[in-house]
Amino acid sequence: MRDIVVFSGSAHSELARQICDELGVPLSRVDVVRFSNDCLQVQLLENCRQKDVYLVQPLVPPTQEHLFELLLMINAARGASAASVTAVMPHFAYARSDKKDASRISFGGRMVADLLQTAGAHRVLTMTLHAPQVHGFFSVPVDHLTATGVLADHFRQRDLTDHVVVSPDFGNAKTASLLARLLGLPVAAGSKQRKADDKVEIDMIVGDVAGRTAIVLDDEIATGGSIVELLGKLQEAGCQQAAVACTHGLFTGKAVDRLRDHPMISEVVTTDTVPPPQGWPALKVCSTADLFAEAIARIHAGASISSLFDGVDPAYAPPQMTLDFS
Amino acid sequence: MRDIVVFSGSAHSELARQICDELGVPLSRVDVVRFSNDCLQVQLLENCRQKDVYLVQPLVPPTQEHLFELLLMINAARGASAASVTAVMPHFAYARSDKKDASRISFGGRMVADLLQTAGAHRVLTMTLHAPQVHGFFSVPVDHLTATGVLADHFRQRDLTDHVVVSPDFGNAKTASLLARLLGLPVAAGSKQRKADDKVEIDMIVGDVAGRTAIVLDDEIATGGSIVELLGKLQEAGCQQAAVACTHGLFTGKAVDRLRDHPMISEVVTTDTVPPPQGWPALKVCSTADLFAEAIARIHAGASISSLFDGVDPAYAPPQMTLDFS
Amino acid sequence: MRDIVVFSGSAHSELARQICDELGVPLSRVDVVRFSNDCLQVQLLENCRQKDVYLVQPLVPPTQEHLFELLLMINAARGASAASVTAVMPHFAYARSDKKDASRISFGGRMVADLLQTAGAHRVLTMTLHAPQVHGFFSVPVDHLTATGVLADHFRQRDLTDHVVVSPDFGNAKTASLLARLLGLPVAAGSKQRKADDKVEIDMIVGDVAGRTAIVLDDEIATGGSIVELLGKLQEAGCQQAAVACTHGLFTGKAVDRLRDHPMISEVVTTDTVPPPQGWPALKVCSTADLFAEAIARIHAGASISSLFDGVDPAYAPPQMTLDFS
Amino acid sequence: MRDIVVFSGSAHSELARQICDELGVPLSRVDVVRFSNDCLQVQLLENCRQKDVYLVQPLVPPTQEHLFELLLMINAARGASAASVTAVMPHFAYARSDKKDASRISFGGRMVADLLQTAGAHRVLTMTLHAPQVHGFFSVPVDHLTATGVLADHFRQRDLTDHVVVSPDFGNAKTASLLARLLGLPVAAGSKQRKADDKVEIDMIVGDVAGRTAIVLDDEIATGGSIVELLGKLQEAGCQQAAVACTHGLFTGKAVDRLRDHPMISEVVTTDTVPPPQGWPALKVCSTADLFAEAIARIHAGASISSLFDGVDPAYAPPQMTLDFS
Amino acid sequence: MRDIVVFSGSAHSELARQICDELGVPLSRVDVVRFSNDCLQVQLLENCRQKDVYLVQPLVPPTQEHLFELLLMINAARGASAASVTAVMPHFAYARSDKKDASRISFGGRMVADLLQTAGAHRVLTMTLHAPQVHGFFSVPVDHLTATGVLADHFRQRDLTDHVVVSPDFGNAKTASLLARLLGLPVAAGSKQRKADDKVEIDMIVGDVAGRTAIVLDDEIATGGSIVELLGKLQEAGCQQAAVACTHGLFTGKAVDRLRDHPMISEVVTTDTVPPPQGWPALKVCSTADLFAEAIARIHAGASISSLFDGVDPAYAPPQMTLDFS
Amino acid sequence: MRDIVVFSGSAHSELARQICDELGVPLSRVDVVRFSNDCLQVQLLENCRQKDVYLVQPLVPPTQEHLFELLLMINAARGASAASVTAVMPHFAYARSDKKDASRISFGGRMVADLLQTAGAHRVLTMTLHAPQVHGFFSVPVDHLTATGVLADHFRQRDLTDHVVVSPDFGNAKTASLLARLLGLPVAAGSKQRKADDKVEIDMIVGDVAGRTAIVLDDEIATGGSIVELLGKLQEAGCQQAAVACTHGLFTGKAVDRLRDHPMISEVVTTDTVPPPQGWPALKVCSTADLFAEAIARIHAGASISSLFDGVDPAYAPPQMTLDFS
Repeated sequence: MRDIVVFSGSAHSELARQICDELGVPLSRVDVVRFSNDCLQVQLLENCRQKDVYLVQPLVPPTQEHLFELLLMINAARGASAASVTAVMPHFAYARSDKKDASRISFGGRMVADLLQTAGAHRVLTMTLHAPQVHGFFSVPVDHLTATGVLADHFRQRDLTDHVVVSPDFGNAKTASLLARLLGLPVAAGSKQRKADDKVEIDMIVGDVAGRTAIVLDDEIATGGSIVELLGKLQEAGCQQAAVACTHGLFTGKAVDRLRDHPMISEVVTTDTVPPPQGWPALKVCSTADLFAEAIARIHAGASISSLFDGVDPAYAPPQMTLDFS
Repeated sequence: MRDIVVFSGSAHSELARQICDELGVPLSRVDVVRFSNDCLQVQLLENCRQKDVYLVQPLVPPTQEHLFELLLMINAARGASAASVTAVMPHFAYARSDKKDASRISFGGRMVADLLQTAGAHRVLTMTLHAPQVHGFFSVPVDHLTATGVLADHFRQRDLTDHVVVSPDFGNAKTASLLARLLGLPVAAGSKQRKADDKVEIDMIVGDVAGRTAIVLDDEIATGGSIVELLGKLQEAGCQQAAVACTHGLFTGKAVDRLRDHPMISEVVTTDTVPPPQGWPALKVCSTADLFAEAIARIHAGASISSLFDGVDPAYAPPQMTLDFS
Repeated sequence: MRDIVVFSGSAHSELARQICDELGVPLSRVDVVRFSNDCLQVQLLENCRQKDVYLVQPLVPPTQEHLFELLLMINAARGASAASVTAVMPHFAYARSDKKDASRISFGGRMVADLLQTAGAHRVLTMTLHAPQVHGFFSVPVDHLTATGVLADHFRQRDLTDHVVVSPDFGNAKTASLLARLLGLPVAAGSKQRKADDKVEIDMIVGDVAGRTAIVLDDEIATGGSIVELLGKLQEAGCQQAAVACTHGLFTGKAVDRLRDHPMISEVVTTDTVPPPQGWPALKVCSTADLFAEAIARIHAGASISSLFDGVDPAYAPPQMTLDFS
Repeated sequence: MRDIVVFSGSAHSELARQICDELGVPLSRVDVVRFSNDCLQVQLLENCRQKDVYLVQPLVPPTQEHLFELLLMINAARGASAASVTAVMPHFAYARSDKKDASRISFGGRMVADLLQTAGAHRVLTMTLHAPQVHGFFSVPVDHLTATGVLADHFRQRDLTDHVVVSPDFGNAKTASLLARLLGLPVAAGSKQRKADDKVEIDMIVGDVAGRTAIVLDDEIATGGSIVELLGKLQEAGCQQAAVACTHGLFTGKAVDRLRDHPMISEVVTTDTVPPPQGWPALKVCSTADLFAEAIARIHAGASISSLFDGVDPAYAPPQMTLDFS
Repeated sequence: MRDIVVFSGSAHSELARQICDELGVPLSRVDVVRFSNDCLQVQLLENCRQKDVYLVQPLVPPTQEHLFELLLMINAARGASAASVTAVMPHFAYARSDKKDASRISFGGRMVADLLQTAGAHRVLTMTLHAPQVHGFFSVPVDHLTATGVLADHFRQRDLTDHVVVSPDFGNAKTASLLARLLGLPVAAGSKQRKADDKVEIDMIVGDVAGRTAIVLDDEIATGGSIVELLGKLQEAGCQQAAVACTHGLFTGKAVDRLRDHPMISEVVTTDTVPPPQGWPALKVCSTADLFAEAIARIHAGASISSLFDGVDPAYAPPQMTLDFS
Repeated sequence: MRDIVVFSGSAHSELARQICDELGVPLSRVDVVRFSNDCLQVQLLENCRQKDVYLVQPLVPPTQEHLFELLLMINAARGASAASVTAVMPHFAYARSDKKDASRISFGGRMVADLLQTAGAHRVLTMTLHAPQVHGFFSVPVDHLTATGVLADHFRQRDLTDHVVVSPDFGNAKTASLLARLLGLPVAAGSKQRKADDKVEIDMIVGDVAGRTAIVLDDEIATGGSIVELLGKLQEAGCQQAAVACTHGLFTGKAVDRLRDHPMISEVVTTDTVPPPQGWPALKVCSTADLFAEAIARIHAGASISSLFDGVDPAYAPPQMTLDFS
């Protein structure tokens, strides 16, 4: 069997190190040079010839820098005659640019998928895309993992009486209803409406939340603004307390301040697909390193990945029974 | 300016004829031959050299036949040195194959988008894709029209007191909330859950429908099975009457029987993106021919299409104000 | 060595089963779903990751359905990270659309070759293309087998005194002359001429057939119309009896009725590249399963395929002696 | 309308000049430099920006030099921002490499078609391809002219009593039968057979030639060896005299000596798709410059080319009547 | 003629504005949005349909941000059905990543060229690439302008007695010798040598500079470190004074401090391909806006660009005389 | 491990044989056929299925013939299902067409790189490209070897007192300075200037050569004209004797006569990347077969190639120390 070589960009080397520990392979070194004209150059410091190369880099701020660093690493691996190059993007942030909701806007999600292929990626390994359709933006095979099982395991340890899973908007409601099903809970969702110019507001909560404790679930939390707005609407609707959960906890801008001490929030749960924020020891961070390591091991061994997710499907639904035979 | 030539496949020549009437150009003839081994051959019976060619074909049953006929028409137009080839698909049915919700399944939406490009399409003109992200499956420019405005105009003429717009599932809920906003109504949605094996069921209605009249909105109605299931759940939730609306009214299988005389249904409204079913004179069919004709005229004249949809955005939200300047 | 996984579309699972028996590998299961809007979805029910996947599907009626099913299977295999995907098309029916003999017609043979590559096929394995040039329509490597040796073996067992091999037209005459050479017989051919509009007729037999028994050879027989026409012309030219042979025996429309009891026909011989027709026990069907199995085994083992065909070349001529050294 | 710019490679500038005269445009100059390491460089000495560029170059010996010169001209035109680049190849010699009749041989016809596209050709204009299927090797639109009408006009002026059109082999027999039909004559063909090693021989004449005068028709004559061999077989079969006709009269090696004074040959007729041989004043050379000029004019004007060939189809058959309406 | 629409990214809108003034067209507006997860989105605020779109963006720091903004603008223009999209990059900074001088390093110059094409650029307009070979990294046509003429005009106004043009290294020496020829001066160059680890040093001056005044010419000056090093070596070699000239004056880091008051430097001359640094009024900035405007006008009018540069060739040598005829 | 199969085109089978000897594999046979119309056909006489195929062919005169032969060999190997196809071009002569120094000229270097990929090459192995940037013309991985170490070894055996390494022009000066560093010598270069029309002349020697013995280094010597011109300029500058060295010793035209007995030349040293000229026994030819063999062995074994070149970097500089860790 060909060897695995794993490199990490500068976005989240801690996760890469944990993945390598789980895999039992060393994390190979990369040298990133920034020239005086601000152009980047990458050198992979381990032989890649005829190897299966995995490049770990979530697209976290500074996003363009990290994306470009990843593109250069892919380019370097291909030029160094790697047998295959897999872009491991625990968070593919450009998935949120997944439609054209105005004239003549860029379609970032599809374009970045194309750029990765142009640079030389043969495969993508990622987690919890903003919408499952984003899978179809890629021309190369995608292995799309989910953190829903990890988050469900976290909440299963609690008393869930009178809880309800709440999605901030309809777009994420299917994932929320999957978590709800795993926990045996009902689901509700915020309904967003675009105001006069460039402002979108949650104008009502669809579903019954009165007297219940909410488990708010989103795929990504950045500034936390819409979570806070949702909590206000939940309170109006008679909900007094909430746990907040997300896969990709960026917590940019004022997010930590907004959420850490919010009176309605009992706890905030996220994963380590992106580096955790500073100064928030109470934040619960669930590890995904074992999922990524297991996925890489199965890709390498030619084993099925679907069985990794017992009852939890990356695209909102449990695997069909027919899969049991394969 | 180069000439426009419009051809129609065999799926829906009536719509093509109306589009041509609106445009003031003749509908050019096509000869489709089926060989004795069941292979198809297409001949375009009008000179295409240096012309802008538009090929009208919604993907309606028999879907594979119509799709392949369209691919052959595109191939013939390109081979005949057309300046540009636009696939006008009023209904792109494969948009429903927009994600991988099980292992090793085909990804039909993306694949068909790629096949159209391989055959030689330079542009796609379509209406109400199943999800706005499907836009990103195409590598060629897409002009994505919406029938939401047409359907809103229909309902604006009615007394809408105590009405609620209901989406059968979360996936379509954003479009439903856009219609709701245009009509000044609240919104509700069915929450689907996958049962033990291959069965999906609506297990609850999220949102308040008790004592209200529903306007059920879906993008496509085929057998009508999930609409009937939704009506049952709505009745359990205290809703007594419903209008049913959709963009693509296929009404296959037992759909006409199921919906025509359903006791809860006050009316069924659809558009002519697909041919209307037989034996249902009461069905209300709104025309989209003028929208397609206007879009083609603007494409040809190099004029903006976005201004066609005042306050109605193809991707769920009204155009941003900044667009007013363009 | 990587594993072989073989799947069959719904066109001819019996042949796929026999190929698998010869190979000594199981035939893996496929789940084909037809949605209510008539769109197809395919799920491969066996792990494909890093496997060499072979998809068996001749393009027989309903041809577009079977072709599209094959495209979806290819797409699913590629998306499931197969190491290689080989489209095994025992009959590539679109090979007959191999030229542009009128203005602005589709060029189906080349287009379908391109679609297969777009879907994700890395290689094609096929038999007796309508013209050897069709090989050049594919951008991927093609292994092109021939049934001429199988058919020659069949006739070698007979008394061939005063026989002549007859091709219905010039296009197939080279293959006919190869069979003639293998059997030590002369060759003749029908000369077709296009009549006033869309009608083509055999207007004469080129070559001496008087007093001889004909072995009529064609690559594909569909309705059998041109065979019956040829027999009439042969009779006029003094030939009283004929055996009819073809690789691809579709026998569509009235073919069985026309040929089964035709007074001039002594026997009809074909192969199992396509499913045999109903109600014709006297039809002689030669098996090609061992040829396909052997070809797959050699592809997999990296062994030469050309030596499979001792004295019988896929493209009309025996391999050159220089090949003996390789 | 955009301007036409025509350049000629060094293969046949006389034809290019005549085409330009017919078109009424100047023949623009090209500078071809051969470096001391034998690499070629081409410079187009007329502005190409936004122009429709036509590059005239038949693939005649030294074939590789002329082919490469053409590729460089295409590359230069594209790099100089031409609006479109058309490769005008009156003789596409690599069309004869149109199948794989031995293991591991190159497939020159398809490969050269791909190289032309890679260099930057948007369209190909050519005449009398060796087989009509070769059209399908090109990924870009091809306008495929025929000289059959020109040759038929030549023979129509003669007394054709007891004449027969003869093809040297089955591959060209369809074209021969088209000429036969235009002249109201019967057709015959040589049947070739491959001998023990690398030798192919005509082993019989299929069709009745006894007592008749032959019009031997081939697409290309190079050394004339197979024509001389055919004449021997014709003589054995009772044919005493022959006219020899071909589209592409290369007459390489000993061809002139062999054919000029051959006792059976009454006349040799060819066209000017390639430069005429030296020292053969009796050779009849029919001009195709007007056909190429008219085709270029129609391509440029966006007019149909098919009507150029009244009753003579590039792919062996007259255009279907349905074309009359277009 | 189709309309021109010009947009500017955020890198250097002042230059874009001047180009538009020269062209007599308005500079159209762009809206760049930075989402809270740091992803960018671009909206072009002018109709692009069937227009020739020019996007002005030099790759200056923050380089990755500006590059990605340009890619999104290209993507938006293509998606908005522009007839053509030209990336106008007055400074293509990644041209310096033009070779692989270590194992497994990224090849940024080629990769960025490919990314621009993937995003949808049809043409590139740029100035003074780091090496003329970089032109060959692009698959789309490139118009490569030069500022050598502009810089020569500047120096022609001075007394050039006992001057010598000096290139900091051999790579730029050909351009330096072109400037030298235009000014009638000799040329010299620094010879760089790589020291033990990652340090490159100028170890000697090749050519005679003693007692002369240097005109140091480089394509880009970033931190100015190598210029200062060169001046030291020039001083050792007997040169007392120097003018410093470059096309792309980035002046990053300590460059302004290093160069503004350097005792050997008489003046620093650059162009406006990049925004000028703050706090350096004595810096001489020559305008290139008219060159870019004229090039765009000629591209649009289909006129030759080469005649723009009388005696100054983008690739080191004056145009050959043969060009005078075109 | 997969098998290696090595074939040689007709350009330099002696080198291929030596490479095979070093590798310990047989040189497989190729059959090249030239048809009577001067088209080429290639047959590989060894099974290639699933093999790593290496095709050895330097681009030496007749260059177009050899290039086309190589393209056909690549095409044949791919069509024969090779696992990978590596074009081993010890001399890539088209690298000299590496820029556009006049309007509307062909860009041969980039175009040939693209043609090789179109034919089916997966990788290129070459030596001493005319400029290191040419590496970036290829879309496939390139392993770029250097002969600088081999040439340095040759000169290290001599007394190098008062020697200077001289490059005929600035373009090759970086390589010359690398050789100079390896030998502990200074460097000088000729400065070329283009005269009135198409003539380029060396107008001065930059650097001190008076009283020194020159080691003239160029990448390729063809007619030797510029070497002789350089020697004249060196003599004017006070240099009395010179050794001449190059990687690619084509010695075309009058080169042997010019250089063999030139009064200033003490010896001429070259390598065997191209066949040696006739009639020059005193020419010193250093072997590169072991370098190519070792590179192929490492490619095959997945080992690093960079360590092959201790202190000698293909792109002008020694590998960075950081590489020592890999």
